Amino acid sequence: MRTLITGGIKSGKSHHALVLAESYPIPRYFLATAQAFDEEMREKIARHKAERNDRFITIEEPIAIHEHLKENMIIDCIPLWLNNMLYYCRESEIETVIGAFIERLPSNIVIVTNEIGMGFVPVDALTRRYGNLLGTINARLAAVCDQVILMVAGIPLKIKGTE
Amino acid sequence: MRTLITGGIKSGKSHHALVLAESYPIPRYFLATAQAFDEEMREKIARHKAERNDRFITIEEPIAIHEHLKENMIIDCIPLWLNNMLYYCRESEIETVIGAFIERLPSNIVIVTNEIGMGFVPVDALTRRYGNLLGTINARLAAVCDQVILMVAGIPLKIKGTE
Amino acid sequence: MRTLITGGIKSGKSHHALVLAESYPIPRYFLATAQAFDEEMREKIARHKAERNDRFITIEEPIAIHEHLKENMIIDCIPLWLNNMLYYCRESEIETVIGAFIERLPSNIVIVTNEIGMGFVPVDALTRRYGNLLGTINARLAAVCDQVILMVAGIPLKIKGTE
Repeated sequence: MRTLITGGIKSGKSHHALVLAESYPIPRYFLATAQAFDEEMREKIARHKAERNDRFITIEEPIAIHEHLKENMIIDCIPLWLNNMLYYCRESEIETVIGAFIERLPSNIVIVTNEIGMGFVPVDALTRRYGNLLGTINARLAAVCDQVILMVAGIPLKIKGTE
Repeated sequence: MRTLITGGIKSGKSHHALVLAESYPIPRYFLATAQAFDEEMREKIARHKAERNDRFITIEEPIAIHEHLKENMIIDCIPLWLNNMLYYCRESEIETVIGAFIERLPSNIVIVTNEIGMGFVPVDALTRRYGNLLGTINARLAAVCDQVILMVAGIPLKIKGTE
Repeated sequence: MRTLITGGIKSGKSHHALVLAESYPIPRYFLATAQAFDEEMREKIARHKAERNDRFITIEEPIAIHEHLKENMIIDCIPLWLNNMLYYCRESEIETVIGAFIERLPSNIVIVTNEIGMGFVPVDALTRRYGNLLGTINARLAAVCDQVILMVAGIPLKIKGTE
C-alpha cells in the first residue's frame, strides 16, 4: 500500500506515518530529507529520531531521494526536499528526481508532505513558485498512491482509498 | 447542479471544474475574472486557455460577474474577482454584485473559489479584511450550491451533496 | 458530548458552535477569551455578542480558562487564549492551564479553535512557535473530544465521531 499523508503544521503527520509503518516487516527504513540548518531544525530532527528509536533504519538524503527508495519505507518529508532543491539552486533537476521517484515508487511506502496552499497567497514570487511546485507535486503523488490522508488536529481523514 | 469548488493553491480546482463541466451540453461558457497584471498572470491565463481550447466560449469580466451569467458555465475564480473589487476601489459595490450573482445563479454552474483562511492570520488589516470578505462570500455561495467540493492534492473531497 | 470545531477564517465556526449548543439545557454559558485590543476586535466582539443575545451567560477570561469551566458551555476561542498567553509573557503557564482545562473538561462543551497551519510556513520564529503550540494543543483537544468538526465554507465536515 502506498500512502500519502498531508496536513498542516503539527497536525500529527509524522506520528501517523510511524503508526501506519508499524505494520511493515523488518527491516523498515526512514528516508529523512531534513538538514539541520539551525538549532530549531536540530531539535526537531533529534525529537523525531527519539520517537523512531531503533524501529527504523534511518537514511539521510536531502536531494537524491529517488536513489534511496526501498520497500517498507517512510519518506519524511517532500516539502523539505523541495526546499533543499531550491536552496541548493537545483530547480532544473526537480522533474528528473520526482519523475524517477514516482517511477521507482515501492509498493509499501508512506510519503509525508504538507498542506501549505490554504492560507493567504504570499507576496513574494519565490514563495509563490515554491507553493505552485509543491501543490503540483502533491497532486502527482496523490494520483499514484493507493490512499491519501489529510491530518486535521491529529485525526486522519481519508481523502482517497477504501475504508 | 450548482457546484462550488474550493481548495488550496495548485490543488486541481480549475482542472476539476473542467472535468465536471465536460458533461454540460454545448454551448458551454467560461467566465474568467483574471486580468493579466504581470507576466506570471499572463502565463497562467494562457495555460488555462490552452487547457480549455475550444470546448468553452470564454467571457472575460473582472468586475460585473452578475451580468454575464449563463447556463452551463464555469466561473473561475471568485478570489480574483474580489481582488479586482478591492484593487479598483469598488468595495462598496461588492454586496450589489454578489447579491445579484446569487439571485441569478444558473442551475448548471461550477464556481471556483479558494481556501485562504487556514494559514496564519496576516498582520496587515487589508489582507485580513480580504480574508474575512472571501470567507463570508464562500459560505454564502456554499449555502446556495447543491454540492461543495474541497480539493486536496488533486483529489476531490465532497463536503456537501449526495454521493 | 464534547465537540471541537476547527476551520479557517470566517468559515462559520462560531455560528456552528451556537447551533450545536442551542440544544443545551438552560443555563448555557459562553466563555469568551477575546480582548478588545483595537477597534477591529471591539466590533467583532460586539457582533458575536449580538448574535448570542441573551441565550448565553457570557464569562470573559483571557488567561485562566481552566478556572471557569461549566457544563453546557461554549469556549470561543483557543487561538486567542494562546495569543493572550504569549502576549502577556505567560508561556511557562500554558501547560498548567491546558492540562487542567483538559482534566476538568465538562461532558457538554463546544470548543472553538482555528486551523492556522495549512498555509505557508512563516519566516519569523515566534509565529512558528505559536503555530507549533496551537497545532499540538488542537491535537490534544481533538483526542479528548467525542467529535471534531472542520468547517469549510460554512459547511461542517465531521472529522471524528459517529454520524
